[in-house]
Amino acid sequence: MTNEYVPGLEGIVAAQTAISLVDGANGRLVYRGYVIADLAEEMSFEEVAHLLWYGKLPTRAELDALTLELASSRRLTPAATATLNALPKDTDPMDVLRSVVSVQGVEHRLEKPTIPLAIHATASFPTILAAFQRRSLGLEPVKPRADLGHAANYLYMLNGKESSPELVRALNTYLVLLADHGMNASTFTARVIASTDSDLASCLVGAIGALKGPAHGGAPSQVMEQLELIGTPENAEPWMRAARQRKVRFMGFGHRVYRVYDPRAKILKAMCERMNPDFFALASKVEEVALRILHEEHPERPQSTNVEFYSAGVLQAIGLPKEYFTPTFASSRAAGWTAHVLEQVANNRLIRPQSEYIGPEPHKPVPLAERG
Amino acid sequence: MTNEYVPGLEGIVAAQTAISLVDGANGRLVYRGYVIADLAEEMSFEEVAHLLWYGKLPTRAELDALTLELASSRRLTPAATATLNALPKDTDPMDVLRSVVSVQGVEHRLEKPTIPLAIHATASFPTILAAFQRRSLGLEPVKPRADLGHAANYLYMLNGKESSPELVRALNTYLVLLADHGMNASTFTARVIASTDSDLASCLVGAIGALKGPAHGGAPSQVMEQLELIGTPENAEPWMRAARQRKVRFMGFGHRVYRVYDPRAKILKAMCERMNPDFFALASKVEEVALRILHEEHPERPQSTNVEFYSAGVLQAIGLPKEYFTPTFASSRAAGWTAHVLEQVANNRLIRPQSEYIGPEPHKPVPLAERG
Repeated sequence: MTNEYVPGLEGIVAAQTAISLVDGANGRLVYRGYVIADLAEEMSFEEVAHLLWYGKLPTRAELDALTLELASSRRLTPAATATLNALPKDTDPMDVLRSVVSVQGVEHRLEKPTIPLAIHATASFPTILAAFQRRSLGLEPVKPRADLGHAANYLYMLNGKESSPELVRALNTYLVLLADHGMNASTFTARVIASTDSDLASCLVGAIGALKGPAHGGAPSQVMEQLELIGTPENAEPWMRAARQRKVRFMGFGHRVYRVYDPRAKILKAMCERMNPDFFALASKVEEVALRILHEEHPERPQSTNVEFYSAGVLQAIGLPKEYFTPTFASSRAAGWTAHVLEQVANNRLIRPQSEYIGPEPHKPVPLAERG
Repeated sequence: MTNEYVPGLEGIVAAQTAISLVDGANGRLVYRGYVIADLAEEMSFEEVAHLLWYGKLPTRAELDALTLELASSRRLTPAATATLNALPKDTDPMDVLRSVVSVQGVEHRLEKPTIPLAIHATASFPTILAAFQRRSLGLEPVKPRADLGHAANYLYMLNGKESSPELVRALNTYLVLLADHGMNASTFTARVIASTDSDLASCLVGAIGALKGPAHGGAPSQVMEQLELIGTPENAEPWMRAARQRKVRFMGFGHRVYRVYDPRAKILKAMCERMNPDFFALASKVEEVALRILHEEHPERPQSTNVEFYSAGVLQAIGLPKEYFTPTFASSRAAGWTAHVLEQVANNRLIRPQSEYIGPEPHKPVPLAERG
């Protein structure tokens, strides 16, 4: 029996999950029973990570315990630090993350993934990124501060000083918004690796590698680059019409699941308008033109602005360099990836699809001497 | 429309591939039109890698060119060497491979995967493993020798001296046998990562992480450990009957696809009998008892010996420590993984299945102060 090839596995249900629901038809993202709009500006990243890992929002005591455990797991191992310092200064921060998360994980060998290991791994992402960013500027790394929350400490380690409550709050909201998103290529990668009974670090490095791809999480810096090329709101329409003539893709639009406005993009758009008015003036014009042109080209297709488009403006306002947009996305998604790995191993089955062979029929090889 | 959850994606065709065919019903493995039995003891790893990458067996000139390119790509970058030397000496060699392949790849950033990059990456695996194995013994690494083939050079770098033609030939056959195997969890991982337009190193580190899992490639050292526990052929039946009482799994048996004897296991079994008679005496008795017990328990299920069972005896005879069995498997499979990545990107579509949400219905969160 041969089944039919399913390109991109589109429409195939590869997992049952209680972690999140992407309700594309209604433009809702739900984390374990809570819609994202109720969490994004109300909850700390720690509260949401607790929700994702333990399946419930924490009590005050549980939140304090998790906050403490995350804060005390921020240090890198000596081998991880040595790796970070050995990488060329112009290394793509996603490659830094992939490599250093791998090395940071070696002490756990083939341990079965657990919540403490998830906490440990998630805590290390901002440390890795901040240390490498400072190194690339020729600065000493800043030691993590256990009295600061996840978002505040990331900015503190990047800048060597505390950021304003407004910026901390904005980064926190970003981290909450991006923490999970049902099935997607990187989460799926993590679950496939987990399904072989491999370890958590292996799952995370695979997920980082998948997120790096521009067709997945690698787009936000490209949004910024495209906006830089357009330059001014007045130039949006002529630049974009000319770009389509050259088959240039508009960055930050379209999603396989959402058929209405992505609820995360909606929140980020409002934040962007407040925090980054210059970016907003240009971006909102570009958005309007992009959606109009895309609709003209394919009136039958629903078009929407994806999460990466306004993320770029928010992360810029927070002060992150554009190469750190996708790795910061990874720092948030680490909570979701690890939650999915834990869910996968709790009720595991090897994920092993089939392939359809379309190569030549079996025949005898010609010996080397007679070839050519 | 909600589709039905497909556990393990069993029966789902996730890719069309011209690279290999696993014909489970007839016990055939085919690489691009050639059955494995015609390749295993006749072709060099380089010839087979050419077949997998370029789609055809090489002429003499093409083989010479590929051999030269592989041989001249064996050096590690300074950052990769520094990472290797920073890892604790007792690091699992699969974690060494995952980490050092990641670092070795950073110079290629987001380059689109190509055959030269595949050659470059595949060439580095034995160098990494040999250098780390020597380091863990307190020995200096041995520089690769460009006049030796892939198999011969691996043994040379491990041992600091050339191995006998018989051992080189045996390792070569092993590398040819394991180089590809249709869809499987690690190859699938590599293709999912490739489908996001990520880079080759990202695909490889994900694949290594998946292969590490005992449900996939992490079993050969466990075969060895189980045989060590059994100790003698006479002890096979009593030990194994007692083991099943305790629900212990027999290592090296069962495969989701093969319904008859795995053609690779057949070749490895014959090699094992010739090269490692003590292992063979014990292993063949254990195999007989295992298949008998498994048949008694599930007469309706086809049972078979998988490739890992006799691999262990062959790799032991070649002189590899058991922790290097799975990484050596990875060194072989690197050819297949990279071939699949190239095939994926040549006709790409994001691999993004769905999930079915089974969590709570959306409801309002209770504020922190009112919880618990």
